[in-house]
Amino acid sequence: MISKEDIKHLEKIFPFWLDINQNDRAKIILSSRILSLKKNSIFFNSHELDGLLFLKSGKLRFFLSSLDARELPLYYLNNMEVEFFENFNDKTISTILDIAFIVEKNSEILLIPYSVLNLFRNKYSIMEKFLHNLTREKFSKSLLSLQNILLVPLKDRLLDFLYSLNKTEIFLTHEEIAKNLGSSREVISRNLKVLEKENFLKINRKKIIILDRGEVL
Amino acid sequence: MISKEDIKHLEKIFPFWLDINQNDRAKIILSSRILSLKKNSIFFNSHELDGLLFLKSGKLRFFLSSLDARELPLYYLNNMEVEFFENFNDKTISTILDIAFIVEKNSEILLIPYSVLNLFRNKYSIMEKFLHNLTREKFSKSLLSLQNILLVPLKDRLLDFLYSLNKTEIFLTHEEIAKNLGSSREVISRNLKVLEKENFLKINRKKIIILDRGEVL
Repeated sequence: MISKEDIKHLEKIFPFWLDINQNDRAKIILSSRILSLKKNSIFFNSHELDGLLFLKSGKLRFFLSSLDARELPLYYLNNMEVEFFENFNDKTISTILDIAFIVEKNSEILLIPYSVLNLFRNKYSIMEKFLHNLTREKFSKSLLSLQNILLVPLKDRLLDFLYSLNKTEIFLTHEEIAKNLGSSREVISRNLKVLEKENFLKINRKKIIILDRGEVL
Repeated sequence: MISKEDIKHLEKIFPFWLDINQNDRAKIILSSRILSLKKNSIFFNSHELDGLLFLKSGKLRFFLSSLDARELPLYYLNNMEVEFFENFNDKTISTILDIAFIVEKNSEILLIPYSVLNLFRNKYSIMEKFLHNLTREKFSKSLLSLQNILLVPLKDRLLDFLYSLNKTEIFLTHEEIAKNLGSSREVISRNLKVLEKENFLKINRKKIIILDRGEVL
């Protein structure tokens, strides 16, 4: 059971909230839960979180995990965004994908469990279409991310990533940067040195200092 | 309008065909079309083919296209398979993905146009769920393919690909193999030479001869 304030969130999550009949709305409200996720926890195919996730606060990073422990970044879930996280090992799907996520900041989520959603998917076409759109969007974002890794040279992606942080001093380890870019610590360190030689930044023992682009050009 | 035989195909495509009312079934039948696609034609974001594609015969290869003309292979559509090919530049989706396909063998498809499907998606939850499942399956297959490119060394993927053809003599050009593996001709040629040195195959001017694995081990 969730709070009155969270019930208001449900109207935002489901743009068609009022088209669902009152009884069914009550069932969704009663089965919804608020969960706190600690920074740095990782969830691999965790069925306890299957369903519609609404991120009240915090940040989640979704990635494809592989046997050799490399992480291929897919997309982020930010504040107030919705994600349909679904059991990929469903019998209707032949292939198995290990999509996992890591909690980047302490997060609070509103979860509508998969089992509850499933009760209404056949009844409300509009809900199924909404979930379908979430799947498509996730699909597009994930493919774009992997396409990016495959086609854009790492040095360029690294610089883009550092600029995107909008800070002049960056306190991430090379390991942390590697995870964000689906690369390894060694490769990132090597590319940072190249960028340092090219005067884009300076590497310090503790931080990376972004040089003003004016100085460079 | 399609033939009586094709109407039978519709029952296979939609497992719930008889749950659609007779009028709506008639509308689908009347708007469905048979199209012949010539070997080697390429379709980029071609909205004329948006909708539900049923491949009566032939083979289509779907890929992500990029500005530098590299192709990242996603999945195949084989005989008697169904694909929901949808306008990714829909306003509900922010990102733009260039998914294209090439006709690998002369193909015949049964197309139910997107505009017709859209008439019934809100009416029949079961249809929306069916389309959603097709999207998810496509999603899984595509991500697995890109994951494969990113994580499995090209030499291994190349050998797997050659073995998968189940032929002792392969008459594909290095360029054709490159397209199948999302690589370039130069890289494929270099890797073929390595495999030749390791006695997995012999390269000829016209063909690649696969050596018996018994000879190798």
